[in-house]
Amino acid sequence: MSNPTAAMLVIGDEILSGRTRDANMYHLAGELSAVGIDLCEVRVISDDPGAIVAAVQALSAAYDTVFTSGGIGPTHDDITADNVAQAFDRPIGVRDDARAILAAHYENSGQQLNEARLRMARIPDGATLIDNPISAAPGFTLENVHVMAGVPTIFQAMLASVLPTLTGGAPIISQSQRIYRGEGDIAGPLGALAKRYSNLSIGSYPFQQDGVFGAHIVIRGNDAAQVTAAMAELNAEFPT
Amino acid sequence: MSNPTAAMLVIGDEILSGRTRDANMYHLAGELSAVGIDLCEVRVISDDPGAIVAAVQALSAAYDTVFTSGGIGPTHDDITADNVAQAFDRPIGVRDDARAILAAHYENSGQQLNEARLRMARIPDGATLIDNPISAAPGFTLENVHVMAGVPTIFQAMLASVLPTLTGGAPIISQSQRIYRGEGDIAGPLGALAKRYSNLSIGSYPFQQDGVFGAHIVIRGNDAAQVTAAMAELNAEFPT
Repeated sequence: MSNPTAAMLVIGDEILSGRTRDANMYHLAGELSAVGIDLCEVRVISDDPGAIVAAVQALSAAYDTVFTSGGIGPTHDDITADNVAQAFDRPIGVRDDARAILAAHYENSGQQLNEARLRMARIPDGATLIDNPISAAPGFTLENVHVMAGVPTIFQAMLASVLPTLTGGAPIISQSQRIYRGEGDIAGPLGALAKRYSNLSIGSYPFQQDGVFGAHIVIRGNDAAQVTAAMAELNAEFPT
Repeated sequence: MSNPTAAMLVIGDEILSGRTRDANMYHLAGELSAVGIDLCEVRVISDDPGAIVAAVQALSAAYDTVFTSGGIGPTHDDITADNVAQAFDRPIGVRDDARAILAAHYENSGQQLNEARLRMARIPDGATLIDNPISAAPGFTLENVHVMAGVPTIFQAMLASVLPTLTGGAPIISQSQRIYRGEGDIAGPLGALAKRYSNLSIGSYPFQQDGVFGAHIVIRGNDAAQVTAAMAELNAEFPT
């Protein structure tokens, strides 16, 4: 499979401290899979400037597209925008277009565009804004990095506006089958199947249910006919 | 805070493809937090040998302790043990103590210890086994890396036997408060509070509920009295 590649960078102490269960990784993984972009790596790091700069540089160099979530609000721990700017050695400041978006939003809602909120208009030079239909404060795209909010509803809305701008590959076809046999009984024939269909990705994900061991076998690839053929061979080997 | 540091490496295509929602990260984060070990980074990577070796080496060098989950079963895509051995340049083969554990388990359950299952006895030289009370196949500890199963029940059981062997720091005290004000109204006073209590970690996690914006403010640190004092100042600033 030679689809475009992507990585995700989740920025936030709340995930690492066990306080919050991340929801954005699962959502992004499903959306990218549907448009044929391979999510190859996810990193979760804390609100630490050095860690953010290093991770943005490493992931941006290694993959076609990078998505970040978290750290673009108005509080002191929202440092993502400044660190992404630093990662690409770009100046950053309050930008007029972003300020105008915030000014209109807060005027409509009768709230004050104070100094803290104005931090959300800090956008690196040369970045393109990402629309935020929920709470106005925009994300942005700089080079191949899409900087988005951590709040799941806003993350999802931003992703919906970014996705159509990306070039996907062939959507990945996936078929799965539950086999109620120990993985150790499945492993031999499955390994042989994986060798015969070397351009498919064949995974085995064990489960345990009411004391019975089994495995979900998932066959994935760009070629639907091949996926179907491989699944037929699997079913012949392990009739249900 | 100068607690011991930890990282987690989640190995598995099923997370990156959006098929499975990871559960082990959230569990590990909570358990480590309770014993005063700071989870600093999580990486999710695919079943790719080069990626696993590189990630194990990078995380092992950067943090006191590393936990991996996934890829230690009997099927062709279970390559974690071999790659961890390679990361530390250690020989790996079927080890007698691990084989004995599997032989006893499969004899009891009337299943065959076939070639595929025997792969689960492949343990790097010098590693210590981690008990698996659920399905027998052991994890192992090599250097500062704990290699554990991806199935959540087994991951949790293995973690329970590893945790008491680790030296934790002072448990982290955490207090939180919901404030029903826009984050932009909270940001100024909160930033000043964070400056006054520079040895505490003060986070703001915005939420949206029935159209109302607010933020969870979380104050964390090793010193309970300081956490309480900072929370009192926050409550005085934003009475509920």
